[in-house]
Amino acid sequence: MNGRVAGDGSVRISSVAGLAQAQAGQISFLANSRYAKFLATTSASAVVVAEPSDCPAVQILVKNPYYAFTQIAVLLHGHRQHAFSGVSSGASIDCSASIGEGTRIQDFVVISQDARIGRRCVLYAGVFIGADAEIGDDCILYPNVVIYDGVRVGHRVIVQANSTIGEDGFGFATEGGVHHKIPHVGRVVLEDDVAIGANCSVQSGVLYDTRVGCGTKTGDSVVIGHGVQVGPGCLLVSQVGIAGSSTLGRYCVLAGQVGIAGHLHIGNNVVVAAKSGVSEDLPDGAKVFGAPAFDMKQALKAYSSIKSLPELRRRLKALELRLAKLESVTTPRDEALQV
Amino acid sequence: MNGRVAGDGSVRISSVAGLAQAQAGQISFLANSRYAKFLATTSASAVVVAEPSDCPAVQILVKNPYYAFTQIAVLLHGHRQHAFSGVSSGASIDCSASIGEGTRIQDFVVISQDARIGRRCVLYAGVFIGADAEIGDDCILYPNVVIYDGVRVGHRVIVQANSTIGEDGFGFATEGGVHHKIPHVGRVVLEDDVAIGANCSVQSGVLYDTRVGCGTKTGDSVVIGHGVQVGPGCLLVSQVGIAGSSTLGRYCVLAGQVGIAGHLHIGNNVVVAAKSGVSEDLPDGAKVFGAPAFDMKQALKAYSSIKSLPELRRRLKALELRLAKLESVTTPRDEALQV
Amino acid sequence: MNGRVAGDGSVRISSVAGLAQAQAGQISFLANSRYAKFLATTSASAVVVAEPSDCPAVQILVKNPYYAFTQIAVLLHGHRQHAFSGVSSGASIDCSASIGEGTRIQDFVVISQDARIGRRCVLYAGVFIGADAEIGDDCILYPNVVIYDGVRVGHRVIVQANSTIGEDGFGFATEGGVHHKIPHVGRVVLEDDVAIGANCSVQSGVLYDTRVGCGTKTGDSVVIGHGVQVGPGCLLVSQVGIAGSSTLGRYCVLAGQVGIAGHLHIGNNVVVAAKSGVSEDLPDGAKVFGAPAFDMKQALKAYSSIKSLPELRRRLKALELRLAKLESVTTPRDEALQV
Repeated sequence: MNGRVAGDGSVRISSVAGLAQAQAGQISFLANSRYAKFLATTSASAVVVAEPSDCPAVQILVKNPYYAFTQIAVLLHGHRQHAFSGVSSGASIDCSASIGEGTRIQDFVVISQDARIGRRCVLYAGVFIGADAEIGDDCILYPNVVIYDGVRVGHRVIVQANSTIGEDGFGFATEGGVHHKIPHVGRVVLEDDVAIGANCSVQSGVLYDTRVGCGTKTGDSVVIGHGVQVGPGCLLVSQVGIAGSSTLGRYCVLAGQVGIAGHLHIGNNVVVAAKSGVSEDLPDGAKVFGAPAFDMKQALKAYSSIKSLPELRRRLKALELRLAKLESVTTPRDEALQV
Repeated sequence: MNGRVAGDGSVRISSVAGLAQAQAGQISFLANSRYAKFLATTSASAVVVAEPSDCPAVQILVKNPYYAFTQIAVLLHGHRQHAFSGVSSGASIDCSASIGEGTRIQDFVVISQDARIGRRCVLYAGVFIGADAEIGDDCILYPNVVIYDGVRVGHRVIVQANSTIGEDGFGFATEGGVHHKIPHVGRVVLEDDVAIGANCSVQSGVLYDTRVGCGTKTGDSVVIGHGVQVGPGCLLVSQVGIAGSSTLGRYCVLAGQVGIAGHLHIGNNVVVAAKSGVSEDLPDGAKVFGAPAFDMKQALKAYSSIKSLPELRRRLKALELRLAKLESVTTPRDEALQV
Repeated sequence: MNGRVAGDGSVRISSVAGLAQAQAGQISFLANSRYAKFLATTSASAVVVAEPSDCPAVQILVKNPYYAFTQIAVLLHGHRQHAFSGVSSGASIDCSASIGEGTRIQDFVVISQDARIGRRCVLYAGVFIGADAEIGDDCILYPNVVIYDGVRVGHRVIVQANSTIGEDGFGFATEGGVHHKIPHVGRVVLEDDVAIGANCSVQSGVLYDTRVGCGTKTGDSVVIGHGVQVGPGCLLVSQVGIAGSSTLGRYCVLAGQVGIAGHLHIGNNVVVAAKSGVSEDLPDGAKVFGAPAFDMKQALKAYSSIKSLPELRRRLKALELRLAKLESVTTPRDEALQV
């Protein structure tokens, strides 16, 4: 971890735990200052921290405690295991489909014609792969994930259960009181190392591909509209929605329940606070909050002022009355001169 | 398309594309003025537009470019194809169910007792049709769509993957600290030409049917509560939620992430801007924004004023100080008279 | 029902209906005063009410009409029936799994190694039960519900279709521009009598179990983040999201589309109005609204004042002009003395 040990470096650690729950033999960490109060009383045998602190446990000092702790958790516990192997005869695999070496396919999976699945993938029960879809190497698709035809999935992509990739989006041309469905000629491209949460929806593009960039991660129930371009390294927290044709740069962070309107251009490294609604283009590095969203620092102050609106109204009314009284009794200068 | 051609009407077109991406041999369109800047430089061979413009491509002039373009996209590309035919022996179909002529049913579909499926339907893998449910003709149910028992689905209805139609809603009577579940005696009725997005939920009614009117379309992750009546021709964008027993008239548009409280009456042709929360009845033609929502024009102005709240507070404070000073130094008229 | 009958107690009732829709032979109820107007004209043969009223139907007077009516609905209609029995040979059940007596399992269900299913459960088609997961007695899992490995489900739990329990949450440590996935060592525990809606997601904990307390109910598309602790008896309405590591006490009510930020402590009996965003700890009994949320009574007043912001700005501007004018013409007292 490239860390420095403060205390007995020979202590034996077998598992990870939170500061408040940890017992002897466990390691914990501090990354969020809300939990700093637990350092002094933790029963953990070791803690990963950024700065030395008054704490009974052995301290491992590192620059990025959450990252170091993540590495330790992988070492001690590994990632989620998959309790099946081989390609089940209970799956329905079209004879024109190709399946890479070492790929595991569970019962009740459907792989449609001309689909291509890479090596060492894990396809859980109920996964559907549409015609001509392509899945890279080392992907994990959890149960009941649906990949529509033509979708392109890169390497090391993880999709949690019940998510839908490549459905037709909300494309209807209204004429004569009828909403006419437009064909979705574009596909969905999930680039390498993308992770999609559970119950998410990523719509196919109408005219060009919807794209989710390398290493971008989403929470659950996220909806990515048709034609949206999400850059690499973005974090889209649960219940975020991005309307059609908008583009996000790289390393944007959209907190929970954020909505991005359609046809917008959002720059790189943009941060949008939870529940915000973005209705206009945002430059690189913008940090915004609100609905409609604007500069986060200003917006936090402005939104917290909503609380005082009734008081402002009262004070304004009082001022109007006082001023009117003053106006009625005041002797203007010219009148005074006439005295 | 009933359009007028400006330019060489003999140019050959093979596919559709966006203005910025189009190449020779492709046709594009302009419906959103944000993209007007691309007209002058597009490489498309033809464009569908409402008004003539400075553009190197052949122009097809029509009243409704998006609709005309939709027709062209259907002609050139057709709608999504389905890579299977017939009724799979790998489906589980109760012997009491009836299946119409030309209907295609993939592996791992379940059709329960007394269910009735119309003609020329397409049921993808993992679709579940409950007992006594009825599906009309020419419907498409994408993988893992769940239709609960008793649901009524009209003709030409499309449901995208992983959506749930007819689950019990949030109906609990609380007594003695226990939330007692109420049976949902009503069903869900999806009328003709309804389209439901991916990962949506439409709850069965408690006392009467939940109904989604003819030609209404929804985005993804939309939730329609128990007993809700949605009129014909409505557009419910992704992540909209409508709480129980509310009614919407015809041709309403609810933008992304809108919430409608329960037991409300929303009129015809109502438009609700994105992220709004509607908490009271709305008359025909209302256009609203905000949470709680009110008149859209007023609300856009009012919400954009939130930004200036800290400044308003400062100005109000300054006024109070200046007025107090003035009050303390001013010679009222009666005192002046005494001078 | 422990009710008092006003009218002919011998009238025969065969089914339930809403006040406005009910016919002879049906019983209805009044719990929401919005519907009181229908009492005078209902065609129901009987109504369950809290207070006597001018109504042509037989009245059953009870303290809690909705609860009494729920009991009647159960008596007359029963809960949802399940149209299959036994354990299907078309399910895929690991030989190490245990299945309790009377449990029904439909086609295309997967039960993984060492999973334990209780007695009298109903597992619909497409349900996936991960390795070492445990389901109590009398549970109902609707089609395509996914239970990840290790999840603990109590007795009498109901999960509606397409919901996901136990997926990995949004846990990524960012280092060197890469978001590194942290293993989720915790599980999900759904205690007895929990009901989960359709298309919901409950994430496994990173360091300790995510827990949903006894008798808590959720609507559809609800997302419960990793490590969240929801107390007993809570009501989480559709599209609610609770970010990681937050805790809710008992009997909290979160209305539709509410978001709770991460790492918060929400007390007992807290009520959060629809669409609110909670960004700080809340004590027992707090009632809040807004984003960020604060005291509900104040917030409803404050948010309704947003409408008048443009008018406040105009009035403030007018005051400033009037005051400036007054300042310019007023003879201060000391100058007046010099006159």
